[in-house]
Amino acid sequence: MSVPERLLSQLAHVELLTPRPDESLWFFTEVLGLEESGREGQSVFLRGWGETFHHSLQLTEGPEPALGHVGWRSAGPEALERAVESLEAVGYRGGWTEAAIGHGPAYRFTAPGGQVEEIFWEVERVKATGELAPLFPHRPQRFRPRGAAVRQLDHVTLTTGDILADAAFRRDVLGFRFTGWTAAPDDPELCVFAQCTTNEQAHDLGLGPEMTERTGRVHHFAYWLDQRTDVLRAADVLLDYGIELEYGPGQHGMGEITYFYVREPGGARVELNSGGYRNYEPDLKTVKWQPVQGSNDWYRTMGFKDSMYEAFPPAEPKSSVKPDLFNAAK
Amino acid sequence: MSVPERLLSQLAHVELLTPRPDESLWFFTEVLGLEESGREGQSVFLRGWGETFHHSLQLTEGPEPALGHVGWRSAGPEALERAVESLEAVGYRGGWTEAAIGHGPAYRFTAPGGQVEEIFWEVERVKATGELAPLFPHRPQRFRPRGAAVRQLDHVTLTTGDILADAAFRRDVLGFRFTGWTAAPDDPELCVFAQCTTNEQAHDLGLGPEMTERTGRVHHFAYWLDQRTDVLRAADVLLDYGIELEYGPGQHGMGEITYFYVREPGGARVELNSGGYRNYEPDLKTVKWQPVQGSNDWYRTMGFKDSMYEAFPPAEPKSSVKPDLFNAAK
Amino acid sequence: MSVPERLLSQLAHVELLTPRPDESLWFFTEVLGLEESGREGQSVFLRGWGETFHHSLQLTEGPEPALGHVGWRSAGPEALERAVESLEAVGYRGGWTEAAIGHGPAYRFTAPGGQVEEIFWEVERVKATGELAPLFPHRPQRFRPRGAAVRQLDHVTLTTGDILADAAFRRDVLGFRFTGWTAAPDDPELCVFAQCTTNEQAHDLGLGPEMTERTGRVHHFAYWLDQRTDVLRAADVLLDYGIELEYGPGQHGMGEITYFYVREPGGARVELNSGGYRNYEPDLKTVKWQPVQGSNDWYRTMGFKDSMYEAFPPAEPKSSVKPDLFNAAK
Amino acid sequence: MSVPERLLSQLAHVELLTPRPDESLWFFTEVLGLEESGREGQSVFLRGWGETFHHSLQLTEGPEPALGHVGWRSAGPEALERAVESLEAVGYRGGWTEAAIGHGPAYRFTAPGGQVEEIFWEVERVKATGELAPLFPHRPQRFRPRGAAVRQLDHVTLTTGDILADAAFRRDVLGFRFTGWTAAPDDPELCVFAQCTTNEQAHDLGLGPEMTERTGRVHHFAYWLDQRTDVLRAADVLLDYGIELEYGPGQHGMGEITYFYVREPGGARVELNSGGYRNYEPDLKTVKWQPVQGSNDWYRTMGFKDSMYEAFPPAEPKSSVKPDLFNAAK
Repeated sequence: MSVPERLLSQLAHVELLTPRPDESLWFFTEVLGLEESGREGQSVFLRGWGETFHHSLQLTEGPEPALGHVGWRSAGPEALERAVESLEAVGYRGGWTEAAIGHGPAYRFTAPGGQVEEIFWEVERVKATGELAPLFPHRPQRFRPRGAAVRQLDHVTLTTGDILADAAFRRDVLGFRFTGWTAAPDDPELCVFAQCTTNEQAHDLGLGPEMTERTGRVHHFAYWLDQRTDVLRAADVLLDYGIELEYGPGQHGMGEITYFYVREPGGARVELNSGGYRNYEPDLKTVKWQPVQGSNDWYRTMGFKDSMYEAFPPAEPKSSVKPDLFNAAK
Repeated sequence: MSVPERLLSQLAHVELLTPRPDESLWFFTEVLGLEESGREGQSVFLRGWGETFHHSLQLTEGPEPALGHVGWRSAGPEALERAVESLEAVGYRGGWTEAAIGHGPAYRFTAPGGQVEEIFWEVERVKATGELAPLFPHRPQRFRPRGAAVRQLDHVTLTTGDILADAAFRRDVLGFRFTGWTAAPDDPELCVFAQCTTNEQAHDLGLGPEMTERTGRVHHFAYWLDQRTDVLRAADVLLDYGIELEYGPGQHGMGEITYFYVREPGGARVELNSGGYRNYEPDLKTVKWQPVQGSNDWYRTMGFKDSMYEAFPPAEPKSSVKPDLFNAAK
Repeated sequence: MSVPERLLSQLAHVELLTPRPDESLWFFTEVLGLEESGREGQSVFLRGWGETFHHSLQLTEGPEPALGHVGWRSAGPEALERAVESLEAVGYRGGWTEAAIGHGPAYRFTAPGGQVEEIFWEVERVKATGELAPLFPHRPQRFRPRGAAVRQLDHVTLTTGDILADAAFRRDVLGFRFTGWTAAPDDPELCVFAQCTTNEQAHDLGLGPEMTERTGRVHHFAYWLDQRTDVLRAADVLLDYGIELEYGPGQHGMGEITYFYVREPGGARVELNSGGYRNYEPDLKTVKWQPVQGSNDWYRTMGFKDSMYEAFPPAEPKSSVKPDLFNAAK
Repeated sequence: MSVPERLLSQLAHVELLTPRPDESLWFFTEVLGLEESGREGQSVFLRGWGETFHHSLQLTEGPEPALGHVGWRSAGPEALERAVESLEAVGYRGGWTEAAIGHGPAYRFTAPGGQVEEIFWEVERVKATGELAPLFPHRPQRFRPRGAAVRQLDHVTLTTGDILADAAFRRDVLGFRFTGWTAAPDDPELCVFAQCTTNEQAHDLGLGPEMTERTGRVHHFAYWLDQRTDVLRAADVLLDYGIELEYGPGQHGMGEITYFYVREPGGARVELNSGGYRNYEPDLKTVKWQPVQGSNDWYRTMGFKDSMYEAFPPAEPKSSVKPDLFNAAK
């Protein structure tokens, strides 16, 4: 078996549109603890205290909560070229953007689910000085215990029309590992969720069902904390800020991650997570899960929640019947 | 066997003198996360976010780092009377103070080690309002993730001339449980440290050796965090504030507590801790430890540290030879 | 305000009847990690590795899963006498049993909810020898990492006809602290759950609704682990033994404890828990909770579960309508 | 800047020689919790419960505690060929071995430090059946809570004559990321320790000083546990087996990992660890540490330990003076 070349090194940033930019900025800086790296136009650039790149979140004023774009870093300068060749070889026609805030020239294309994504190699790195200068020489800045104090961007989950096809595209064209998918409870061939990864964990890219006429949507993106206990502490921090949690804390079977979900003030869903396994097999076999095996709820004691089917920008479901796609609890 | 009446319900507060009141206040509020409850004269009154009483720390300007006094709450109004009777029956001649900030009338006396201690029953309780109003009805206020965010006062450790005699006084006169003591490495009859408690843990009162001509000294006092992992997080918080740790993090055998020690800006030693066992036996047998059994260092891999023999106010040791009292590591 | 005398020092043991004694014994020893202390007749006596008394669980063969009895240790020899006087003064007519396995003479009475309870002072303590001899001098035995390796009995939750009256009985007659209760979502005067305690935590005695014609029932009893993370590890241990969890892991608002529930092979419900706050106020004000404040579910994201209304021995509910008593999630 | 091709995907196994094979086997299976995968000749093959390959430890009877060999898995079948070309291009003359237990043909060569290392691509995977069959479909087997229950092999640390040259070889010839090194306290150009990695953490290969006439030695190898708290639990497990810890628990600055070290019965050093950061930059800049920055001891409170300079097989140091290479505590 030949192993596909690893073309991407990591999820680098997400751009989020918010109709309430001030409240969203408060949420990401004061409550989650991100640092501001800069501003331009209607955008504020943010990063976690443990992140070396200029930003992992671009927060941009917009008419509704929505994804602006997703940024991936290639595995090297040549890998960037080969990723573009690989995309164009299967018919993608993207285009290059000039160097932007925080990174060099990027190739932008429209993903199968309609999202704007970009790939670049060159990055601007953080060198904090003054009171943010790091105590430890390998860190980009000091740890500041503000709010939940999230460390770094972890993953983004997008909607897409054909989940298995999108996952195969990620694997075959962009060199992701396609780690696993969940089948619908009543249809073992119907994929309701898939995970792909450029790293050691189960996913930095989730793919969920579209369920509406709108495309190009985001279900959530996640920030990482060091230890599972930090997620529980973060939940306490948010609760005591008077912020309602949407779902969790709990543990997903796929990826073994500890999580909870919350809506930021603009309306979009954010996850905080930790834990997860470390797997280094380039030829990892894609695992098929049944919900009853704990794909969503490791402990198999908790139902899914209707609100969790929503993605952004908001849209009416195609059918009035919401399929109970993920439930495993009796 | 008759069981002594439980006369005290808890360690209520400690008064610390500091020659650098502004820096000490910054340390206790910004770094440890205490809330300010009030001010009077040269004193600022502070409490942890989880504490129901008006204050657990009275921070008072003074010429050198030293103990002002220790405050105990009695087990009830009658228990306060009986504690006074019990003290006076063995010759203690203290006196009553008027109701003070945060509590009612108190009986003040000089402990065997020379410290001023007081016992009272009536307390003023915190009822936080506004943005500090608690989310949960049993809590005195919101949890605020500021700095190390310590929850509550845990214990105080004093020096005393005759450790075993002082511990027996606590047990026989004041109804403490005398949970354990450590013998010197080379003299199994010489007590170098003892623990007494009014609660379920091994100690809220530690007793260590005097070693100098000065009496009435404090070795350290400790604030509690919920989980052992919180102590490690707190250490990170302090490090990244540029504050040097003195000793730890580690785990003591006596009490099974996770700890680290640090000097506050005024010079006194503060411990942050968590963990510890829960024991409810009124007739618990006092346990004698050898250092090699891990009395100080549960893991028996780490030496003690010379600076840890110092207590406050500072004083020259009687002898130039510092006995290596607690070492268990080879 | 006068403070009631503390008559009881702790919950000492629970007797559980099981129709499947071999499987139940396997569950408690291999899966939960209890040690066997002895056998007599149809009973096996078990204890956690951190427990100093002879046993905390008496497992007895019986026709259905049910409570045998609950054992409390008094706060001293005189406190035992006064507890009996206090009970008899309000009309209880119990009786003394001879010294039994693990403890001295006990006064047995029928609690308001119909359960058999007993109070005693004298206890037999564990002194493990051989390979179970403790490494640390304060421990009754070695820590053995078998299964979930629970440390000690934590609490028992009983059903009762009038919850507030039963809680008042515990407080006024037996000296418990009555820490809090939950009102029904639609009736702020109807108590659906109450907590009483002899220790620093919110409860070692829970009181829930009867809901059937049968009395004297137990809802669950709980074993304690040191840290919250240990509860999550224990859940993993049980899952990988092929044992289905009933509810959780999660965190209760009342008591701030991390928990999960599981049915032992005989059918009864067992909880494993950790965390919880430490409060030492003899005059703690009883707190009234609304379910929407997170009384059951700290995070307010999770519904209650129908099966969790069941108690033991099993019985049909009086009404076919199960009231949704504890739900706070929307 | 061009980024070197990633030729290796992970550290796959370590072969350890032991003069006490029965006791060593007991230690690795009962105390650390490894599973036995098979036996051949004087070797027993072992794996952690979370490992997908046939084995991560080959335990072989031998005259003294020593490294047998280190096995690396290539990043793919072509990467194996290119790794061999790359080695031979700089003068290495290794040779191919037939497929062995657990993996396919391997290229064996002698590393700069004298160790035998091998690289292969094909692996045999675990498919546990019966009572070890996994509950979760992505896992190779059930989690069994036996002893410390380590999850997977983490890293190996070797001695070498010229640490910086060896690290450069790993980077330039084999595509490792060279993440950081520590300078001697009194000579900022003298490297006393270096870390290289094929994965997201700071190292799966450590390089330390030779200090004796013997070459080809191992300082330790490490098994991983999921969470930092699991390392503390593992320390308790080992202590209560009567096993003395050598160093720790503590946290290293380089890699941010929680660790402790222990000698297995054959005499070699084993580390258990967890934590550590996740970094995905192919062009990560190598970080130079000073001991006072916490390279060894994150908290800068603890001295190094003489016994920790020893490596295996044991040998007399060249000089009678042991340099105090790593100490940062005052």
